[in-house]
Amino acid sequence: MTRTVYVNGDYVPEGEASVSIFDRGFLFADGVYEVTSVLGGKLVDFDGHWARLERSLTELEMRNPVDRDEMLAIHRELVSVNGIVDGRVYLQVTRGSAGDRDFAYPSEDTEPTLVLFTQATPGILDAPIAQKGIRVISVDDLRWARRDIKTVQLLYPCMGKMAAKAAGVDDAWMVEDGAVTEGTSNNAYIVKDGAIVTRALSHDILAGITRAAVLRFANEAQMKVVERDFTIEEAKAADEAFITSASMFVQGVVEVDGEAIGDGRPGPVSQRLREIYLEESLKVAI
Amino acid sequence: MTRTVYVNGDYVPEGEASVSIFDRGFLFADGVYEVTSVLGGKLVDFDGHWARLERSLTELEMRNPVDRDEMLAIHRELVSVNGIVDGRVYLQVTRGSAGDRDFAYPSEDTEPTLVLFTQATPGILDAPIAQKGIRVISVDDLRWARRDIKTVQLLYPCMGKMAAKAAGVDDAWMVEDGAVTEGTSNNAYIVKDGAIVTRALSHDILAGITRAAVLRFANEAQMKVVERDFTIEEAKAADEAFITSASMFVQGVVEVDGEAIGDGRPGPVSQRLREIYLEESLKVAI
Repeated sequence: MTRTVYVNGDYVPEGEASVSIFDRGFLFADGVYEVTSVLGGKLVDFDGHWARLERSLTELEMRNPVDRDEMLAIHRELVSVNGIVDGRVYLQVTRGSAGDRDFAYPSEDTEPTLVLFTQATPGILDAPIAQKGIRVISVDDLRWARRDIKTVQLLYPCMGKMAAKAAGVDDAWMVEDGAVTEGTSNNAYIVKDGAIVTRALSHDILAGITRAAVLRFANEAQMKVVERDFTIEEAKAADEAFITSASMFVQGVVEVDGEAIGDGRPGPVSQRLREIYLEESLKVAI
Repeated sequence: MTRTVYVNGDYVPEGEASVSIFDRGFLFADGVYEVTSVLGGKLVDFDGHWARLERSLTELEMRNPVDRDEMLAIHRELVSVNGIVDGRVYLQVTRGSAGDRDFAYPSEDTEPTLVLFTQATPGILDAPIAQKGIRVISVDDLRWARRDIKTVQLLYPCMGKMAAKAAGVDDAWMVEDGAVTEGTSNNAYIVKDGAIVTRALSHDILAGITRAAVLRFANEAQMKVVERDFTIEEAKAADEAFITSASMFVQGVVEVDGEAIGDGRPGPVSQRLREIYLEESLKVAI
């Protein structure tokens, strides 16, 4: 089936969906994005993603071409016309095209580019990987210094995924000054002696929407949460490890740089958090 | 006049030139570029830019969709049909589109995207700025760690240009660990006691094609060249400062962070190097 995607006000077949070669997203990576999960046909944490989008745009002095209700309507229309039950909606806003190439931002009246499309992930909740856990390697974190802004400057995360693939594993954890920053497209956690440890928010990592929800649920369940740096050595010696992301929810990590974590299976804390996250998120999905 | 631009084998009017929203250049900044100057209708240092393009592609395990002669033919055709006398040719290669979004690289048979367009800069050799000199501010260098690869991850250089504009000056020099790396789209130099000082090549900066030519000419003219780090304080106390780039050639810098350099005018070394560079480059332009 041909997907219907959204480009600057129009719903078009995916094969016809294009942007100008002068779009600043294409020429300068001058754009930001969000990915919202769809479960049972409903949007998970739409307002969290909307708020982060607004923040990314503000940080870059970029205008949002639509308001919250219009953005929600586009999401719902795409979910509906493409018959998405479980999947996700990707959205990207760029600074648009001024019809030529210039590092300086174009005039204020230049219309931003807005692109959205869906991806179907049938059966994702019961995917075998959730039971089996993922394996990761560590790579140096070579990204720019403002990872709190969700820009499309994603070449290095792509390279990290390929390094993981070449090593026969699932993903890479990025390491800076001896401490894990995050995964290529997810936040990273370890569990040690009952405490959930994850890096504190700063310009160094993305403020994950799923991270915020999971930490809130963990606190509500009276689990101990410590926001601090941790090393790959600590991860190897941890009782458990996991990642969170809008696409993967809460996902156990069972190996780091070839060493099994705990008993080499997703641990009870990450499994419990996954259950709570999915249960609570579905309750408030819209 | 409507420009004719090149997109994946076709010469099309600029208003119709587009790429898929699934192009990895648009979604992941998974692409590289080059800018070649045109003077008197001829291409300046085409083979230097070709060699650097090949290196960038190799570093990213990306395929070049055309060979050197075909790339040259496209450059010449665009210069011809657009009647470019003085100007430049921009080229961008991306990893193409696999029709969906996935961090992992698409299969080997995915055709890379190739886009080229011209920009006319009539009278650039006699532009008043060349005589007057440019003023710069310093900004922290927040870019990723592989600036030797000429990728389209240019958001931060754009932000630097805007910071310069907001400060009422022309450009920004980026500073890391106390030393100047480079300008937003050029290499940076100071001159002190007759010696030309510029940062040595590494992953920290782009290996400028104009830089290589200028240093070669400086050596041939028996000028002293020292490749080492320098600070903003050294720049303020220098006799001269300048930048080099394919678009600006050799351009005097007369102010850093509000302080005049030397007598506040482009100095004799940068002016001499500009003359030599233009003279020698025109001789071998093709």
